[in-house]
Amino acid sequence: MPEPTFALGIDYGTESARALLVDVATGDEVATAVYEYANGVITETLPDSGTELPAHDWALQDPQDYLRALDATVPACLKEAGAGADQVIGIATDFTACTMLPTKADGTPLCTLDEFHAEPNAWVKLWKHHAAQPEADRVNETARRMGEGWLERYGGRISSEWFFPKALQILDEAPEVYRAADRLIEGADWIIWQLSGNETRNLCTAGYKAIWSKRDGFPPKAFFEALHPEFAEVIDQKMSRDVLALGARAGGLTDAMADRLGLAPGTAVAAGNVDAHVAVPACTVTGPGKMVMIMGTSICHMVCGTKELNVPGQCGVVEDGILPGLYGFEAGQSAVGDIFAWFVRSCVPAACVAEAEERNMSVHELLTERAAAYKPAETGLLALDWWNGNRSVLVDADLTGLMLGMHLGTRPEEMYRAIIEATAFGTYKIIRTFEEHGVAVEEIYCCGGLPERNDLLMQIYSDVTGREFKIARSAQTCALGSAMHGAVAAGKDAGGYDTIEDAAARMAGIRDKTYKPDPAAHKVYEKLYAEYDALHDHFGRGASDVMKRLKALKGVG
Amino acid sequence: MPEPTFALGIDYGTESARALLVDVATGDEVATAVYEYANGVITETLPDSGTELPAHDWALQDPQDYLRALDATVPACLKEAGAGADQVIGIATDFTACTMLPTKADGTPLCTLDEFHAEPNAWVKLWKHHAAQPEADRVNETARRMGEGWLERYGGRISSEWFFPKALQILDEAPEVYRAADRLIEGADWIIWQLSGNETRNLCTAGYKAIWSKRDGFPPKAFFEALHPEFAEVIDQKMSRDVLALGARAGGLTDAMADRLGLAPGTAVAAGNVDAHVAVPACTVTGPGKMVMIMGTSICHMVCGTKELNVPGQCGVVEDGILPGLYGFEAGQSAVGDIFAWFVRSCVPAACVAEAEERNMSVHELLTERAAAYKPAETGLLALDWWNGNRSVLVDADLTGLMLGMHLGTRPEEMYRAIIEATAFGTYKIIRTFEEHGVAVEEIYCCGGLPERNDLLMQIYSDVTGREFKIARSAQTCALGSAMHGAVAAGKDAGGYDTIEDAAARMAGIRDKTYKPDPAAHKVYEKLYAEYDALHDHFGRGASDVMKRLKALKGVG
Repeated sequence: MPEPTFALGIDYGTESARALLVDVATGDEVATAVYEYANGVITETLPDSGTELPAHDWALQDPQDYLRALDATVPACLKEAGAGADQVIGIATDFTACTMLPTKADGTPLCTLDEFHAEPNAWVKLWKHHAAQPEADRVNETARRMGEGWLERYGGRISSEWFFPKALQILDEAPEVYRAADRLIEGADWIIWQLSGNETRNLCTAGYKAIWSKRDGFPPKAFFEALHPEFAEVIDQKMSRDVLALGARAGGLTDAMADRLGLAPGTAVAAGNVDAHVAVPACTVTGPGKMVMIMGTSICHMVCGTKELNVPGQCGVVEDGILPGLYGFEAGQSAVGDIFAWFVRSCVPAACVAEAEERNMSVHELLTERAAAYKPAETGLLALDWWNGNRSVLVDADLTGLMLGMHLGTRPEEMYRAIIEATAFGTYKIIRTFEEHGVAVEEIYCCGGLPERNDLLMQIYSDVTGREFKIARSAQTCALGSAMHGAVAAGKDAGGYDTIEDAAARMAGIRDKTYKPDPAAHKVYEKLYAEYDALHDHFGRGASDVMKRLKALKGVG
Repeated sequence: MPEPTFALGIDYGTESARALLVDVATGDEVATAVYEYANGVITETLPDSGTELPAHDWALQDPQDYLRALDATVPACLKEAGAGADQVIGIATDFTACTMLPTKADGTPLCTLDEFHAEPNAWVKLWKHHAAQPEADRVNETARRMGEGWLERYGGRISSEWFFPKALQILDEAPEVYRAADRLIEGADWIIWQLSGNETRNLCTAGYKAIWSKRDGFPPKAFFEALHPEFAEVIDQKMSRDVLALGARAGGLTDAMADRLGLAPGTAVAAGNVDAHVAVPACTVTGPGKMVMIMGTSICHMVCGTKELNVPGQCGVVEDGILPGLYGFEAGQSAVGDIFAWFVRSCVPAACVAEAEERNMSVHELLTERAAAYKPAETGLLALDWWNGNRSVLVDADLTGLMLGMHLGTRPEEMYRAIIEATAFGTYKIIRTFEEHGVAVEEIYCCGGLPERNDLLMQIYSDVTGREFKIARSAQTCALGSAMHGAVAAGKDAGGYDTIEDAAARMAGIRDKTYKPDPAAHKVYEKLYAEYDALHDHFGRGASDVMKRLKALKGVG
């Protein structure tokens, strides 16, 4: 029997990076290692200099942490698996996005230079950096005024989290940083540059975060010029119009990096990719009409179709953006697990916490156990899941949470259940909106932390939507998806695969256990969903703008 | 210097009774004693027999507890004050209402007879017994159908808490108890019967709970007959048309009771009264346009006017019902302190509880301290205070609580503040509704547990309403009010007073500290109140009946 062949996937998350070594022939996950970023998410002061960040909505990272993650995890995986360097045929990464940084022409991050070390705008802006809202507003207003056609592909509005608002913030606030930046680049591409020595740009972040499309390229120079005269040539001066397809080979591992990590020089390195999107084939999905939901602190919904369509609230539609040859649609709920965490942190009485401790379970588990004793509608509660705004159908960050139906006997587990149900209604709304606008959603596949942990939640999602929910076999779907792209970058001749479909057929899988809807429960939930929908429209579509007015009044008192 | 002269007031509450011995000349409270009812509020099983109550909305009491309260408190007060029997010139009581029971012709409660001891309908139905809702519905429907004019005096709808629904429930469910009951009587009048030996009926419970008015008396026989053939003669068979004015002398203390309690035989005993209403003169209020609010688990709002008017949501308007010669209006919020208690019980995280313990303060105090750091509107939250329905302007028990504006950083103390503000908006709505319908509210006086305990709450009420809030001097306003009525029952010639005005001038007082509105805060709260009002109307007046539909769906799943 020949020695097995491996691909290495590295998943760069918000707090940590995770490497996974996968058997290319079977999908067996043979070794894994995690690295918590030393500097984590930087929200208050810069490392070393102690420079205070200007506002509370900043979120930065240290690019050195991305390299430290390689050092800490790759050799550890090889050692755990007892794998030789030549058994690893391909490497791929996935990254949070848009997470971007300014660098010199050789890839050196500006924040590592003495000159800019104490300058916040020289650091990596993490996906959840929200301080570029004025720039996002300017991008949206300018695009509307100039009649930019691309706006519709992104649900009519782009987010402060995206590439150009963040780039423009550097120019607005720290023009010397902007001018010193030879390159502005996604972390997803920067890490590939470090591995392969080649500066490349990947289709996924270009399409979903930087307004690029296969047919139209980037927006025109006149648009960027209208945003800021110095911004006119941002694409050609600081970015690139060469965009690599997903799974394409960005290059071979450099000698220096091979030596550093214990891998073979020249090992295939795939083009960069985004954490959510690599999960799709890792859930076995390689065709249209199959929605993949990554369920954790938030939910990302992805589905492919055969036509470009504009669906209200979609984060974006990108040709080849998820799977080659298809239009990839992305939508999302901006807070799901985050709301449950808020509830446990802010609303759970001491007696619950004490009981959970005594029974050696988490508070989530205790609340879930109690909430499972209720039938649909039995709590009499209904909530709108807008604790972090609505970034799905309504695309409105100024919306807030709502709960009604409370009485003097209402118990914490009932409110917990109501919040779970509200997030399920939010997903149902997204599915229905896709279908109403011509994007089929015939099957549903899930991955992420919530399906791992919460049976009740999965059953409620199934009952609310009236759909079967299938769960990815891997508990590390993103890293597995990256490894699959690494196997594709290596290609069949090198022991990998020529297409992501082939890789998925051999390396991905789903679990035997699925969640099937109870028709009686679904019938009751249809009634509750009608109530959710009415509240959604009342508070979300202008009949009552009370949530926005309350936000506007916050500073008045 | 002659020996001081005292009046004794006894306040029969929900969980306990409190006696207060008051110096008639000065209002000095010289002695007090409390008795917790041995059988408390009976909600699950009957004493002794262990008979299970049929449903969770039952709330009964044991009439023996009312007598035990006398034994436990009256001698204790005399002893504490070192007062002789002949120094006490008058006794009066106030009671929760409608709290009613069936008795034999001599006043013996049916529940004390072996025959009926295990029969729930033979016991005292406490004010918050809510199991007579079907009977209340029948009373309201029948009154509407027959065009009964009195309905308007009671806000268009009477409550399941009132006398006739409770009496009708006995007839419906236990006709043998109904037939065996020679008398159906308020606890307020039963205790006077025990003290004086005379069966009397007082104007306050007759007017506010049994649909009696000075001009029209009770509803006609045809109305009662329409409710149930056997109910036709309920007034003349089991009640009385003789109604005593407030402060009237019901009789003299019986020899047996005088001996039992250590008082003088023949001591003046006043007609029965209701806990809320006796508080009005005890707050110094003896004229029109001055609202008295009793603020505790719920709020009762009372104000007198010179004309009979029908104000939406008023619990009732009764001529002479609060003060002689005036029309007494009553309104109320069905849950206030109860919502805060619910919040502390159900929604406060362990860390808050631990901090409160460490700092040796209550959780309420800790939350209040933290909530006080916020300015009006700063939390971004808004709530509807309907955790126990709405019994003020909307008179709708099927409404439920609502909160909106929550985000992932929302803290417990912000929600606590939002609930306090919601109850203040509820009071403001009541005040505005009175004024819009011609009942002047020129001054506000408060008493009860909340003004004693919560500075922040009082300031918020003042800021929301834009009014000064004055606080009764006595911490036991109801018992003081009763003692004042005892002094009036004794009369001037016996060392008391001839009118409640005279008694109030000498025995009642308010504190130096009042709460004055901050104009800037009021201005912001006017904006928030407009939002409250819009939600109030949207969810309370039929634009969205989601709260009722959710209640109706509760049993469906």
